[in-house]
Amino acid sequence: MQAAGQFHLPKEHGRAPGLSVSMARTMAALALLGGAFVMLYPDAAAAAAPGAEMKFVLDSFAFLVWGVLVMWMCAGFTMLEAGSVRTKNASVICLKNIGLYAIAGLTFYFIGYNLMYVGVEDGGWIGTFSFLYGTTAEEIALLTAADAAPEQVEAVVSNGYATMSDWFFQMVFVATTASIVSGALAERVKLVSFFLFIAILTALIYPVVGAWTWGGGWLDAMGFQDFAGSTIVHSTGGWAALAGALIVGPRRNKFRANGSAKATPPSNVPAVTLGVFILWMGWFGFNGGSQLALGGAADVVALANILANTNLAAAGGVLAALALARPLFGRTDLLAGLNGAIGGLVAITAGPDLVEHYWAVVIGLIGGSVTTAGLKVLEALKIDDVVGAIPAHLFAGVWGTMAVCIAAGGDVLVQLTGVLAVGAFVFATSLLVWLGIKYTIGARVSHTVEELGQDAAELGIEAYPEFVLMPEVDDD
Amino acid sequence: MQAAGQFHLPKEHGRAPGLSVSMARTMAALALLGGAFVMLYPDAAAAAAPGAEMKFVLDSFAFLVWGVLVMWMCAGFTMLEAGSVRTKNASVICLKNIGLYAIAGLTFYFIGYNLMYVGVEDGGWIGTFSFLYGTTAEEIALLTAADAAPEQVEAVVSNGYATMSDWFFQMVFVATTASIVSGALAERVKLVSFFLFIAILTALIYPVVGAWTWGGGWLDAMGFQDFAGSTIVHSTGGWAALAGALIVGPRRNKFRANGSAKATPPSNVPAVTLGVFILWMGWFGFNGGSQLALGGAADVVALANILANTNLAAAGGVLAALALARPLFGRTDLLAGLNGAIGGLVAITAGPDLVEHYWAVVIGLIGGSVTTAGLKVLEALKIDDVVGAIPAHLFAGVWGTMAVCIAAGGDVLVQLTGVLAVGAFVFATSLLVWLGIKYTIGARVSHTVEELGQDAAELGIEAYPEFVLMPEVDDD
Amino acid sequence: MQAAGQFHLPKEHGRAPGLSVSMARTMAALALLGGAFVMLYPDAAAAAAPGAEMKFVLDSFAFLVWGVLVMWMCAGFTMLEAGSVRTKNASVICLKNIGLYAIAGLTFYFIGYNLMYVGVEDGGWIGTFSFLYGTTAEEIALLTAADAAPEQVEAVVSNGYATMSDWFFQMVFVATTASIVSGALAERVKLVSFFLFIAILTALIYPVVGAWTWGGGWLDAMGFQDFAGSTIVHSTGGWAALAGALIVGPRRNKFRANGSAKATPPSNVPAVTLGVFILWMGWFGFNGGSQLALGGAADVVALANILANTNLAAAGGVLAALALARPLFGRTDLLAGLNGAIGGLVAITAGPDLVEHYWAVVIGLIGGSVTTAGLKVLEALKIDDVVGAIPAHLFAGVWGTMAVCIAAGGDVLVQLTGVLAVGAFVFATSLLVWLGIKYTIGARVSHTVEELGQDAAELGIEAYPEFVLMPEVDDD
Repeated sequence: MQAAGQFHLPKEHGRAPGLSVSMARTMAALALLGGAFVMLYPDAAAAAAPGAEMKFVLDSFAFLVWGVLVMWMCAGFTMLEAGSVRTKNASVICLKNIGLYAIAGLTFYFIGYNLMYVGVEDGGWIGTFSFLYGTTAEEIALLTAADAAPEQVEAVVSNGYATMSDWFFQMVFVATTASIVSGALAERVKLVSFFLFIAILTALIYPVVGAWTWGGGWLDAMGFQDFAGSTIVHSTGGWAALAGALIVGPRRNKFRANGSAKATPPSNVPAVTLGVFILWMGWFGFNGGSQLALGGAADVVALANILANTNLAAAGGVLAALALARPLFGRTDLLAGLNGAIGGLVAITAGPDLVEHYWAVVIGLIGGSVTTAGLKVLEALKIDDVVGAIPAHLFAGVWGTMAVCIAAGGDVLVQLTGVLAVGAFVFATSLLVWLGIKYTIGARVSHTVEELGQDAAELGIEAYPEFVLMPEVDDD
Repeated sequence: MQAAGQFHLPKEHGRAPGLSVSMARTMAALALLGGAFVMLYPDAAAAAAPGAEMKFVLDSFAFLVWGVLVMWMCAGFTMLEAGSVRTKNASVICLKNIGLYAIAGLTFYFIGYNLMYVGVEDGGWIGTFSFLYGTTAEEIALLTAADAAPEQVEAVVSNGYATMSDWFFQMVFVATTASIVSGALAERVKLVSFFLFIAILTALIYPVVGAWTWGGGWLDAMGFQDFAGSTIVHSTGGWAALAGALIVGPRRNKFRANGSAKATPPSNVPAVTLGVFILWMGWFGFNGGSQLALGGAADVVALANILANTNLAAAGGVLAALALARPLFGRTDLLAGLNGAIGGLVAITAGPDLVEHYWAVVIGLIGGSVTTAGLKVLEALKIDDVVGAIPAHLFAGVWGTMAVCIAAGGDVLVQLTGVLAVGAFVFATSLLVWLGIKYTIGARVSHTVEELGQDAAELGIEAYPEFVLMPEVDDD
Repeated sequence: MQAAGQFHLPKEHGRAPGLSVSMARTMAALALLGGAFVMLYPDAAAAAAPGAEMKFVLDSFAFLVWGVLVMWMCAGFTMLEAGSVRTKNASVICLKNIGLYAIAGLTFYFIGYNLMYVGVEDGGWIGTFSFLYGTTAEEIALLTAADAAPEQVEAVVSNGYATMSDWFFQMVFVATTASIVSGALAERVKLVSFFLFIAILTALIYPVVGAWTWGGGWLDAMGFQDFAGSTIVHSTGGWAALAGALIVGPRRNKFRANGSAKATPPSNVPAVTLGVFILWMGWFGFNGGSQLALGGAADVVALANILANTNLAAAGGVLAALALARPLFGRTDLLAGLNGAIGGLVAITAGPDLVEHYWAVVIGLIGGSVTTAGLKVLEALKIDDVVGAIPAHLFAGVWGTMAVCIAAGGDVLVQLTGVLAVGAFVFATSLLVWLGIKYTIGARVSHTVEELGQDAAELGIEAYPEFVLMPEVDDD
């Protein structure tokens, strides 16, 4: 009888933000029957249970409220990155971030959503290459009806949620993936090249990964579990960033001739801290909204667990990163601690609905540790990641996806398949795109621009014109 | 049967945040009848449809949640403005912003709300000059009842929403109008003169415009459509700012003897960017809350469309502004792009509930373009607007109000009447008030104060005392 | 019949965030009976009233949404404090804030919640010393049921809210208490000593105060009213900070030989302002969430009043503080105005649900005045409080708690007993802990570290390495 409940993928398929449209249509038909039954026999429904329309309202409203919080994460990435780079590149990173959010919002409307969710066959690989996405005819009929008939309401309600509420929530997710790339490649990737890559990532690469999983494709059919996207969102961003970091190369003088890394201290530590608090806050929407529903007792119990676990994992991430940074970096390292929060958050994202909450602490502790140790690994490999995005989003994302096997009964082989398949696809396609960019318009600014700073060279402004008397010069 | 639904103004009257009380009372009587019918014959209501009390809860809750996001926009304006001014005026602009929010919150409680919404006759001009606004006797009876009778609940529910939830949402709107003024007049308007103007704007000028429109007055009777206030909120703020900019005059040395404008670069670009992200986020509440309801399927479908359109228009505004700034200003201009987001948001505000979403992109693209081109227009007219508030809020607000004719079937003459009437009234009264201020307490700081900076002169502090070794001096 | 409604403490006991578990169990049994009645006789419930499951959903959701806003207050404290300290200590204060939030989130999960809420006897003193808190067996049964039986839903719904939604909301409250301490003791308390104190405060001291009051202990039995925690949260933080300030002592050279205080201007005024806007925004969640419910008309009417009153009091606080600062400090003082907002907010927190809203303005005006005058009192007593946390949270908290007697009929003796008992307990235990820390690991950094700055000495970084050419030296 619980119509909206039928829209959830069965738990063993992973709770997915978004359904394939083919699946949704089948379900809608079933729901319509169920709904009609309720409407014909109102007494058959317990008076204490929410009605179908109310479930529809709450499920849609939840998408929107949580989606607004996820949008807010873009501001968090911006502050984190603008504070992490040197002042001479702080304006450009602001532009990259607001630009990527604008681009992602349009590409996902024009192409991305359809490719990810519309017409993905069961076990399939991609959705539809079609243009635009929007309000359904049934919804328009309801909105324009002077006096809506119950059948008109039912036709809309049977979809489970307002069409564009789901679109909105999915759109802010793809923006998150894009945000991960900007931080890693800061201070040397060309503005226009970056925007071009983001357009391809958000229109094509991410939606294909999404089609395999939340869209109902082959990884979903295998039973791959990734509740809110440790792999689908965060590792995807991380792989794309890694490919970019390899092609674009490290900042000039980041690595000394003897191979050791030069410290590149953040220019604005309070801004970095604010960014992490924003991300932490936004993550409640990121994980909470991925419950995809609010309209029943089970949903809200799961939601409460998700928010509690998200917070516990982030807290664990902070403390583990601070503790591990002491032996590893020889000091109490605020930036490691801040990145540890992100590592803990990424790690819990694959399974934030677990009911034994101490597991969230453990997953966060390890997530924060992986993130901190990962900084050392990248340095050893001479990969330059300005904000530590690859350890936090990719390494902790892999850990989180595998941790589902321990804490929530995921299948090791299936989870590993998902990690590797997404990794291979995203890394390979990103590498190709970055190579294409490199050998056409160029991926990287000139040495002169890099030394002068992208703000002055590409935008003709300074981020803090009255503060900095003399921009740092990159000599050893 | 859908009691709460009856509280919406018919669509052709524009969906209005707030109803005139006279209209609300008539509706309340109808709703009471409807509600009583539901209570007498519960089986007559489909079990799947939300009950009247639930609608009341959700509609009121929506006012509050979205209202909190609109309040947050004040922080966005503050960051945008504090980052845009030179460091020597950054503290004063912070004080102006927190002060205006405090003032608006009190004037709208003491006078403004009554003038805007209480007792506006159909087609009338103003509401009531009466003091204070508050919880109704029915609400107090319900709150203090040990065991509330169904009639007591019904008496409260029949109003459609909790009295103060609507007040809260309307109050944060008037604060937005006030915020627009502070940015345009920054760096030279006297603190006390600014606060005096804000008190008059929020207690009298804005409420009269509101009475004509959302309060049910003559523009509303004509069918003027302005869903969330492209004209009513944003152009009103823009006209008030324009009048102030004309009376107060440009900053010293802003325009050279030959008439060309000197660049006055923002002192803190990441702060400006953060401000725009905050505004973008808050705008989901601004436009979403203006649906005025949440308690049914049609409402939440409209809400989803509103949030999607708001985002699409802002994204379009960013990209159009960036593109247009290249030929116009000869560079990739981050600040134009950021202001373009605001232009896109202002433009979609008059009709964010449109169902063909590509229109939102188009409206945003043009909104961003108008905003960017408007900067040039102001410069040509030698009007000094520190943050570009007049192009973003007034010019894009006019465009958005007229765009309703294209995208949502508004009447051109009616929309134009609204634009011109609001413009004439707000500009004329603001001009009078600014003139009165100029010739009594003075509108503008002295040349000495302007050169020294308002922070040191008016507050005795510096915004960043450890960063700036030597404040900029305004010589050519 | 209104099952969820029975979970509210009667008004004369103060509306409490959280119930003692013993009390909750009794209520749950009653609710189960009530719920069963509704389920057996659906027609007996008016169709227009929300069902029990919907109440459960909304009440739990409200905890989570408002809780997210309260978590956001930690970012507000961080910005306020990072902007208030000198640049040489800005990174350490960031670490203290993210660290305290992580610590509070874990201690309250491991120990604190149980000590505060689980098994507090009526009129008792403490809850249970037990380890971990979590999802109930009934909730797990519901979450894992393939097809939940109505009895399973009922078993969960009868608790009134999802277990972890309440935990989440209470957890963010304890973090607020901890945040108050960091600001007052900034710039000289050792990092590790601070974290140790926070662990004890959040695991033991605050939960005991909570057990006396919201947990259903002896102060609650007396009828002590403190709706959202003027005393329980804010004064507790204030007393802990005061004890710390006395033991740790003032910053070097804060007070001159003649006893007068040196000005220590904030290093980043826009950051302080942003912090206050964040706190103001978050306070809507702090006070609004303390209604503990959303699922009925009376709840949402109360919620609307709470948000309106919270805003009115904050606005009053700003204006009163600005006005009073002129004679007191001889200038228009932005920082006094900002702290006045906090004072107004703290003052209304004990009774934000009052229905005569002008009282909120009055309470806020006095709260802002007390905060501003309190700065002078602390200076006279040579107590160094970097951000004015003790006046804003302790002095205004006492005022707010007593103001309940005027505005909402609280009993003067009872309120005074609460203020004094909480004060004596928190101050005495905090003093002991600080003394213990002082004579073991030391509470304060060395003179050398203090002069060099904690950022360089304890973290090996600078907050703004490119801005500040020469750190300020503390000579007279």
